[in-house]
Amino acid sequence: MNEEIKVGGHISRQFDEELEEIRARVLKMGGLVEAQLDKALHALREDSSEQIVDVEKLDRKVNKLEMLIDEECTQILAKRQPAAGDLRLIIATSKSVRDLERIGDEAERVATMVRHALDNDASNKSFKGLLSLGEHVKELLHATLNTYARMDSRSAVLNMRMDQHIDEEYSRVVVRLVNLMKKDSDNISDALDVMWAARSLERIGDHCINICENVIYLVEGEDVRHTAFDRIKERLG
Amino acid sequence: MNEEIKVGGHISRQFDEELEEIRARVLKMGGLVEAQLDKALHALREDSSEQIVDVEKLDRKVNKLEMLIDEECTQILAKRQPAAGDLRLIIATSKSVRDLERIGDEAERVATMVRHALDNDASNKSFKGLLSLGEHVKELLHATLNTYARMDSRSAVLNMRMDQHIDEEYSRVVVRLVNLMKKDSDNISDALDVMWAARSLERIGDHCINICENVIYLVEGEDVRHTAFDRIKERLG
Repeated sequence: MNEEIKVGGHISRQFDEELEEIRARVLKMGGLVEAQLDKALHALREDSSEQIVDVEKLDRKVNKLEMLIDEECTQILAKRQPAAGDLRLIIATSKSVRDLERIGDEAERVATMVRHALDNDASNKSFKGLLSLGEHVKELLHATLNTYARMDSRSAVLNMRMDQHIDEEYSRVVVRLVNLMKKDSDNISDALDVMWAARSLERIGDHCINICENVIYLVEGEDVRHTAFDRIKERLG
Repeated sequence: MNEEIKVGGHISRQFDEELEEIRARVLKMGGLVEAQLDKALHALREDSSEQIVDVEKLDRKVNKLEMLIDEECTQILAKRQPAAGDLRLIIATSKSVRDLERIGDEAERVATMVRHALDNDASNKSFKGLLSLGEHVKELLHATLNTYARMDSRSAVLNMRMDQHIDEEYSRVVVRLVNLMKKDSDNISDALDVMWAARSLERIGDHCINICENVIYLVEGEDVRHTAFDRIKERLG
């Protein structure tokens, strides 16, 4: 079905351009969201609040892009009445944009937790335990944006596997934090901040997988939400 | 703009029926999600795992309905090429259905936490502290489904105010739980279960507000995401 979702080749050249513009905007939005996560992880790694304000500034840009792209999708539905692959592209894009915006929100939550820890002069040694999780989530986000850019359903399946590892890593982080809290009640507030940040990172992984599911729907015409990973892999992997 | 979003009155009677069917399905799905939350809260109130399995069973039904309604929305976009109010109805419905499904997931998380506490023979006294929050979230969910059923943007604004109170109540619950953990480290694991459940309840409120924003978009043609409550109220309240 790949040829169906190729952007371009419509009788109306203007329609081609409109679709291409939307795709380019989604990727631009993806780049901004990646920068948000990157800056949040930088704050975490360097014990520095320096870039946290950028995460918030970027969030306003991301929110505006979400609404703009959504409005463009609605305009295309109204004006062009797309069918088949074009229609799926618009639907999948509109959904993915929402997930991207949520990823930005979660990155902002991570940044807020780091700022909170820095304000409290807390030893954020335990934040360091998130760095590996954060890097893996960053890789997954990058891979997901590539999956969307190339409309590649096979890489979407690989990303799902990555997310399974992220979920396991997240569980280990939580166990470690609970033990830390039990050992010394002075650690409780700080460890909770770290736990919320870990949760946000794990949620970013989930949103990436939503985007991957949208790409699979787009390319294969199949709705794989609520389908076990093994079954998806069997059919597409 | 109210007349635009009235379901019915199309030249094609079949189109009227299709739109009516989708609306009825969304409300049915809403009823199932309400039942999920109700049963999760029942488990919490009665220290009983009796209805928890129902929450999971309902989740499978809810997931199927989500996919079915989404597919119907896509079919209508492809076949009927709706414009103006009809188009907004389809877009808002497709988005709301996703939020409903997430509400079901969060209700299931609450149920899982209660089961976990019961399995560990934990005193779930601290779960009782969630009952009031849970009841308020249940009210908000019910009000939100009414808002959707009546396509009523004014009640959507009232619901947003309810959610602000829920957020405040959630914060108080978290503070109480942190104090409980600090007082006795034996409480930590149990209190964390309660905290995750509280977080899920608070998230249900957020999803309700997403649905309310969709209704405002549908009725007023205005995208109020990322708009401060006071501004929304000023314009619509």
